[in-house]
Amino acid sequence: MRLSRYFLPVLKETPGDAQVVSHQLMLRAGMIRQTAAGIYAWLPMGLRVLRKIENIVREEQDRAGAIEVLMPTIQSAELWKQSGRYEAYGPEMLRIIDRHDREMLFSPTAEELFTVIFQNGTKSYRELPRNLYQIQWKFRDEVRPRFGVLRGREFLMKDAYSFDLDFAGARHSYNRMFIAYMRTFARMGLHAIPMRADTGPIGGDLSHEFIVLAPTGESDVFYHRNWEQGHDTSAIDADDAGALERFIDGLNADYAATDEKRDPAAEAETGDALKQSKGIEVGQVFYFGDKYTRAMGVSVQGPDGVAVAPLMGSYGIGVSRLMGAIIEASHDEAGIIWPDAVAPYKVALINLRVDDEACAAAADGLYAQLTAAGVEVLYDDRDERGGAKFATADLIGLPWQLVVGPKGIKAGVVELKRRGGEREEVSIEAATARLSA
Amino acid sequence: MRLSRYFLPVLKETPGDAQVVSHQLMLRAGMIRQTAAGIYAWLPMGLRVLRKIENIVREEQDRAGAIEVLMPTIQSAELWKQSGRYEAYGPEMLRIIDRHDREMLFSPTAEELFTVIFQNGTKSYRELPRNLYQIQWKFRDEVRPRFGVLRGREFLMKDAYSFDLDFAGARHSYNRMFIAYMRTFARMGLHAIPMRADTGPIGGDLSHEFIVLAPTGESDVFYHRNWEQGHDTSAIDADDAGALERFIDGLNADYAATDEKRDPAAEAETGDALKQSKGIEVGQVFYFGDKYTRAMGVSVQGPDGVAVAPLMGSYGIGVSRLMGAIIEASHDEAGIIWPDAVAPYKVALINLRVDDEACAAAADGLYAQLTAAGVEVLYDDRDERGGAKFATADLIGLPWQLVVGPKGIKAGVVELKRRGGEREEVSIEAATARLSA
Repeated sequence: MRLSRYFLPVLKETPGDAQVVSHQLMLRAGMIRQTAAGIYAWLPMGLRVLRKIENIVREEQDRAGAIEVLMPTIQSAELWKQSGRYEAYGPEMLRIIDRHDREMLFSPTAEELFTVIFQNGTKSYRELPRNLYQIQWKFRDEVRPRFGVLRGREFLMKDAYSFDLDFAGARHSYNRMFIAYMRTFARMGLHAIPMRADTGPIGGDLSHEFIVLAPTGESDVFYHRNWEQGHDTSAIDADDAGALERFIDGLNADYAATDEKRDPAAEAETGDALKQSKGIEVGQVFYFGDKYTRAMGVSVQGPDGVAVAPLMGSYGIGVSRLMGAIIEASHDEAGIIWPDAVAPYKVALINLRVDDEACAAAADGLYAQLTAAGVEVLYDDRDERGGAKFATADLIGLPWQLVVGPKGIKAGVVELKRRGGEREEVSIEAATARLSA
Repeated sequence: MRLSRYFLPVLKETPGDAQVVSHQLMLRAGMIRQTAAGIYAWLPMGLRVLRKIENIVREEQDRAGAIEVLMPTIQSAELWKQSGRYEAYGPEMLRIIDRHDREMLFSPTAEELFTVIFQNGTKSYRELPRNLYQIQWKFRDEVRPRFGVLRGREFLMKDAYSFDLDFAGARHSYNRMFIAYMRTFARMGLHAIPMRADTGPIGGDLSHEFIVLAPTGESDVFYHRNWEQGHDTSAIDADDAGALERFIDGLNADYAATDEKRDPAAEAETGDALKQSKGIEVGQVFYFGDKYTRAMGVSVQGPDGVAVAPLMGSYGIGVSRLMGAIIEASHDEAGIIWPDAVAPYKVALINLRVDDEACAAAADGLYAQLTAAGVEVLYDDRDERGGAKFATADLIGLPWQLVVGPKGIKAGVVELKRRGGEREEVSIEAATARLSA
């Protein structure tokens, strides 16, 4: 993409109302604009990152055997009355009356609707296990939305719902999502720690929150220092229920809990290894048995012909929130430092002198060649000073900067720099080869 | 995808409340389920087609130089009061009061918000032309939602907004979208006729609706019979404003108008060539000058330093509605016939005897080989009778059926059939080669 034709409204000043660094940088880097309290428009650069995060989430859900569907944002209140949550959910639910005076709502989560859709297409235990997910906008009418996309009102969420015949199956479905979450966050360069957590308005008796440690986090968290290392999940076969369970039990032997789930005995045992920090919740998994299937009157025919209410879990990831968490974890004084997997473009190609024919020809050539090789390039072809171009490139945080200047071009070289690293003079050919690899 | 692990709840009976064939087939083929009046859940098969349609729309918008952004669904009423549309829009707008008693709404279109976002990132005429688009869920509280996704309340729409300095530029932006629309619909196998149309609540003085002819359409349309042939747009250079204008003027020399825009003089001139039909609107383009930029106080610095209100157009495509229109245009007694470009999978691989080892081995092998070659295969590995499998394959309408049976496998052959065409016996190698091509 040529920057001269793009829509990238960067800001020089840090907006006064943005308290945390991710919010500041997303505004400054022209990724989002607030359109109402806790509600954001996604500008082209922000949307590209959002889609990359979304695709990683999707790939790991698919890999875990979940099947993608899409529910409407606006739901009838009827279903929620059936489960008893219409009254229980409180003022965070955005309630709506339509033109025919029917009670509707903007979905804050979707246990009820998934349960009904599941029933509509499932008659027998033979069709279990089943795990359906969606990536869809949700709305929660937070009393004090803040910190940009970290606590917005309209946000993009992945929510999955598993249905199993018995507890062993449901536990395996839970574990599958557990490991899928570890893989999902790791692919984005995040170290997320699963912590015993409260179940809140979803209900149930088993839940983990996946927490990214950050001083700006809203949650107080407590954990064994072993959690500060990452865990390699690549060798785990998620189809092997026993091995998966042992791996996860092994992980969970090290204490980790949110504020609401602290356990004094376990903390005493952890002793000096106990650490305290702030964290950002990026995902949560729940097991709640037949809470919703019973309430909604949902059943399948069991092996002995008797109707059984399937056991459920639900599994959320805050897709738009993840962008804030990634920036909180990966930035410096000059701007964002995108992990490769979620960078909006791989390369910032900077032409320092658009009025110099040799520079323009070289930069145009590099742009054409890299683009043809499938490399995502943002080409700064604007008539601006070099200083402004470098500042923009640092701010938006693309992994590579490729700089074309008049002196270098005469010598047949360009400058290649990893964001945050050192500049290096290389031949045009070497630069192309390195970036296309 | 193995059908045994998929979620494809097909219906044998035609649901009584579905009046048009596309609605009936989308329900029967397990693509959608109604969750409230005019509101649908997208099941896996429906979602796949929706994403394919969406991607074609996106590619043609990108090719036309439009830049993708994403606006929130929930907007503040303030902006709409500024443009005067908050009262004018009427009961189709879903109005919402949030917990702090602020007036909000679910966006039915987004001229106001795009105008504000444009201003936020644009200061000078040098940054024009600019065209921003989104593909996002909209809500219009139709008094009588019907015909499934053809007239739903929550629907997926592509909406683009162009900003130009002068009329010549704005006209070129309009023409660019005009040709992009012709290309978009043609890629989906649709023959959509652009017709002079009323501007409705968007306003302005120039508008075309793109109409697919169908007996189930809600609009009465009138056109010169020349429009019944398609038009080749492949050679048009959309960057050449003059050539593009001449091409479109040439097209529009043949009369075509919706009911509200009939022109008795032009119809008299068309004479015997005048045809009347019903049609489904799949897109609409508008030019409305400075209606919104003036109302919202938006301007850029002009070439002479004086502030100018940019001239705008807006351009909608009913992405979810297109699925209904495609099915209306392409089905038979047995079910849907998907055009290749939007088919959810390319091949229905049918194993007629899952209990036969040779059949299972051959079908598994074909599935592995085709999938590895990047072919999208839906593999019917269920323990069902052949008749049921054929009926499902015809109903869901994948372009190819590849049938593995015990007799054929002994002879080293499988049956290959184009949906709606004849069966043909071919070797396994030939089948793989044909489908991978």
